[in-house]
Amino acid sequence: MTTSAIDRFDFFTIAFDILISIVGSIIVNRLIPILKEKFIKAQLWGNDLNKRNSKEVKIAESQGVLAAGIFLVLMFIMIAVVFSEHLHPASVFPHKKFVEYLAALLSICCMVLLGFADDVLDLRWSVKLLLPLIASLPLLLVYFANYHSTTIILPKPVRPYLGQQWNLGILYYVYMSMVAVFCTNAINILAGVNGLEVGQSIIIAISILIFNLIELQGVCWEEHLFSLYFMIPFVACTFPILIKNWYPAEIFVGDTLCYFAGMTFAVVGIIGHFSKTMLLFFIPQIINFLLSVPQLFHFIPCPRHRLPRLDPELNKLNPSEVEFKKSDLKLLGWLMLRFFSMTKFIRYREYTNNDGERLISTTNFTIINTVLCWFGPLHEETLSRILMLIQIVFGSLLTFFIRYYLVKFFYDS
Amino acid sequence: MTTSAIDRFDFFTIAFDILISIVGSIIVNRLIPILKEKFIKAQLWGNDLNKRNSKEVKIAESQGVLAAGIFLVLMFIMIAVVFSEHLHPASVFPHKKFVEYLAALLSICCMVLLGFADDVLDLRWSVKLLLPLIASLPLLLVYFANYHSTTIILPKPVRPYLGQQWNLGILYYVYMSMVAVFCTNAINILAGVNGLEVGQSIIIAISILIFNLIELQGVCWEEHLFSLYFMIPFVACTFPILIKNWYPAEIFVGDTLCYFAGMTFAVVGIIGHFSKTMLLFFIPQIINFLLSVPQLFHFIPCPRHRLPRLDPELNKLNPSEVEFKKSDLKLLGWLMLRFFSMTKFIRYREYTNNDGERLISTTNFTIINTVLCWFGPLHEETLSRILMLIQIVFGSLLTFFIRYYLVKFFYDS
Repeated sequence: MTTSAIDRFDFFTIAFDILISIVGSIIVNRLIPILKEKFIKAQLWGNDLNKRNSKEVKIAESQGVLAAGIFLVLMFIMIAVVFSEHLHPASVFPHKKFVEYLAALLSICCMVLLGFADDVLDLRWSVKLLLPLIASLPLLLVYFANYHSTTIILPKPVRPYLGQQWNLGILYYVYMSMVAVFCTNAINILAGVNGLEVGQSIIIAISILIFNLIELQGVCWEEHLFSLYFMIPFVACTFPILIKNWYPAEIFVGDTLCYFAGMTFAVVGIIGHFSKTMLLFFIPQIINFLLSVPQLFHFIPCPRHRLPRLDPELNKLNPSEVEFKKSDLKLLGWLMLRFFSMTKFIRYREYTNNDGERLISTTNFTIINTVLCWFGPLHEETLSRILMLIQIVFGSLLTFFIRYYLVKFFYDS
Repeated sequence: MTTSAIDRFDFFTIAFDILISIVGSIIVNRLIPILKEKFIKAQLWGNDLNKRNSKEVKIAESQGVLAAGIFLVLMFIMIAVVFSEHLHPASVFPHKKFVEYLAALLSICCMVLLGFADDVLDLRWSVKLLLPLIASLPLLLVYFANYHSTTIILPKPVRPYLGQQWNLGILYYVYMSMVAVFCTNAINILAGVNGLEVGQSIIIAISILIFNLIELQGVCWEEHLFSLYFMIPFVACTFPILIKNWYPAEIFVGDTLCYFAGMTFAVVGIIGHFSKTMLLFFIPQIINFLLSVPQLFHFIPCPRHRLPRLDPELNKLNPSEVEFKKSDLKLLGWLMLRFFSMTKFIRYREYTNNDGERLISTTNFTIINTVLCWFGPLHEETLSRILMLIQIVFGSLLTFFIRYYLVKFFYDS
C-alpha cells in the first residue's frame, strides 16, 4: 500500500461510480413494476401480516435480488474502470488490489445466490450459518496474502497488565469469519416490519460511506476508497427498494437483500481494515441478537413468528407474546427471563389457569417488541421510524462518538 | 509462469481434489431426494412432454443448482488448499495465480445465479446474452493482467500471404467474451431430451480433463493443472444429476446447469489458454447453433417448443414440424431451407391446402430433429444414446484427432 493521497484518476472513478449508480438506481426502480408479476407467478409472494386486509393482497417477495443483480453488474463495470489505469502493457498491474475486488465480489455473489435460494426453497438454519463461513474463505486468504498482520493494539487502561499488543494469530481469522457469518445473518433477524431490513441496511451503508469519506484523508485512504466504490452503488441500488418497501409495503425484500447487505458490509469491513468500527454500526443488531439468544437457543420457548401483533380495531401494533408452563422453564431460562425483564427489554406476567397450573406469558425477545413494550401500541409506520431512529442514534452517532471522541482515552491518536 | 514441472504438493492437491469431489458427489446424490419436495413446493417442476403420462407426474426442475452449489463449496475449499503452500509469512504469495481462481469462480457463481433466476423467473433472451458478457469482464482483465498477449500464430498454408502471426489486439478480447457468451448458452440450446444437457456437459468435461492430463507434461502445465482442479469436482458433482436425469428422468436440470457448465468450460478455456481446443469440443453445439440460426433469427418461423413429438402408440419420438405459408418465406429463408434440406439436416414438404394456398411443413432446425429424420422414429433413450455418441465422436475424438494429428500439417510442433 502506498501512502500518497488520492489523485485525479480516483476522483474520476468516484464520479463515474456515482454516475453509473444513479443509472443503476433508475434501472432497479423500473424493474420492480416490470418484474412484479413474474415474481408472483413464480410463487415468490407473501401476505403482509401487519395489515387488516393481509389475506387479500399478494406482495412480491425477494425483490432484493433486483438490487443485488444490478449492484453486481455495476461493480463488474467498476472493476474494469478502476483498473483501466493499468491497461497498457508498460504499467505494472496491481494484482494485490485486484484480488481484493474479486474476493469481495465473489463472497457477495455467493451470498446473493444463497439468499435467493433461501427465498425460493426455504433452507435450513445450519446451511445459513455454514455457507457464509465457507464463502468467507477467499476473504481470509486475501487478508493473509495482503496483510497477514494478526496483532491487535490493546487499549491503554489494560496495558499495564496485558502488555502493549497481542498477536491473535489464527484467532484473528476465526474472528473475521465470525464477522462474515454474523453480518450475513444479523439483518435477517431484525426484520418483520415494513421498511426495516432495507432501512437499517441503508443507514449502515450511509454511515460506512461517511466514515470512508472522513478516512480518505488518512493513511489508509486506499482501503476506504475501496469501500466507497462498493457503498455508493449499494445505497443507489437499494434506495428504490426502500421506497417501495416502506409502509405500506408494495414489495418485500426477502432474505436475498439481508444476506446481500450483510455480506457487502462484512467484506468492506474486513478488506477495508475497519471491521471493529463496522461492528459498532451493528450495535442495534448485536443487542437484538443478544436479546434473541434465549429464544434462538430455546431456553425460552420460541414461536414460529415473533412479529408484532396487529390490533385491527386501532390499526396499531402490540408486542407479540408467547405462553408456556412455568414448570417447563429451566433455571437458565428463568434467569434470562428475569434479567431481560429487569432491564425492561421484555414484559412478562405469571398467572394460574383453570387447571391450577402456573403459566407465564412473555413478550417475544426482539427489540421490535421491546419498542412496543415501551411506547406501544404503535402504528406500523411510527414503529418503523422509531427503529430507524434507534439505528441512527445507537448504530451511527454512537459509533462516530466512540470512534472519534472516546477512542482518545483508550488509544494514542 | 515457471517452467518447472508439477511437484509433490501438486500431486497432493490433485489427490485432495479427487477425495473431496467424491464426498461432494455423494452429498449431491443425497440432496436430490431430500430437497425434491421443496423444489416442487416452490413451483420448480415441469412435465416430461416426451412421456405418455406427461401430465400426471411432477418432475423437480433446476436440480443443477445442487450440483453448482456443492461445486462452489468444493472450489472454495480447494482454493484454501492450493494456496496453503504459501500460508507462512516467509513465502511470496502468488497473487497472479490467485486472481485466476477468484475471477473464474466469480464468473461461474454469477452464471449460476443467473441460471437459477432464469429457472425461477423465466428471463428474457437479451438478459441471457448481456449478463454473460458482463460476467466475463473480470476474466478479460485477468487475461490482460497476466498475459496480455493478443497475437495468434497463423497456420502454415496461409503464411506466404498473411505472414507468420497476427496481433488481434482488442479483437482478441472481443473473441474471448464471445466464447463466454457462446459457451454459456450453447448447452441450453441443445436440450430437451432426458439426459442430454448434463450428458453432453459431462462428456465435454471429461474430454477437457483428459486433455489437461496429457498437457500436464507440457510447458503450460500450470494452466492445465488449474483447469484440472475445476474439472474433477465438476464431473463429480454433475454425475449424480446425470444418473437421475437419464431416461426415464426423475429430475430436470434446469437452465442453472446449462449456464453453470457453459461458464465453467469458458473460464478454464480462457484462463487455461486453450479456448480454441475448448471450442472444438463444442463442435456438435456449434453445428446445432448454426443449424438453429434460421429459426432463432426468424428467417423461418420458430414455434415455442422444438422438442421431438411423441408417438404414443409406438412410444417413440418423431421430429417435430412447423407449418407456414410459402408466401411468408423471404428469399434468405428459402435459401436456408433449401441448403439445410440438401445437406439432409432437415426434411420439408410442400402442399396445397383447401383454400388453394401453397404451404410448407418442415422439421425443426435442431440436430435432435436431424437425428430423428435420419434414424427415426426412435425410443427416447436410443435418441439420447445417439446424441451422446455424436458428442463423443464429433466433439471429443475429432478434437483430439485435430489437436494431436492434423495440427502437424498446419503448425510447427
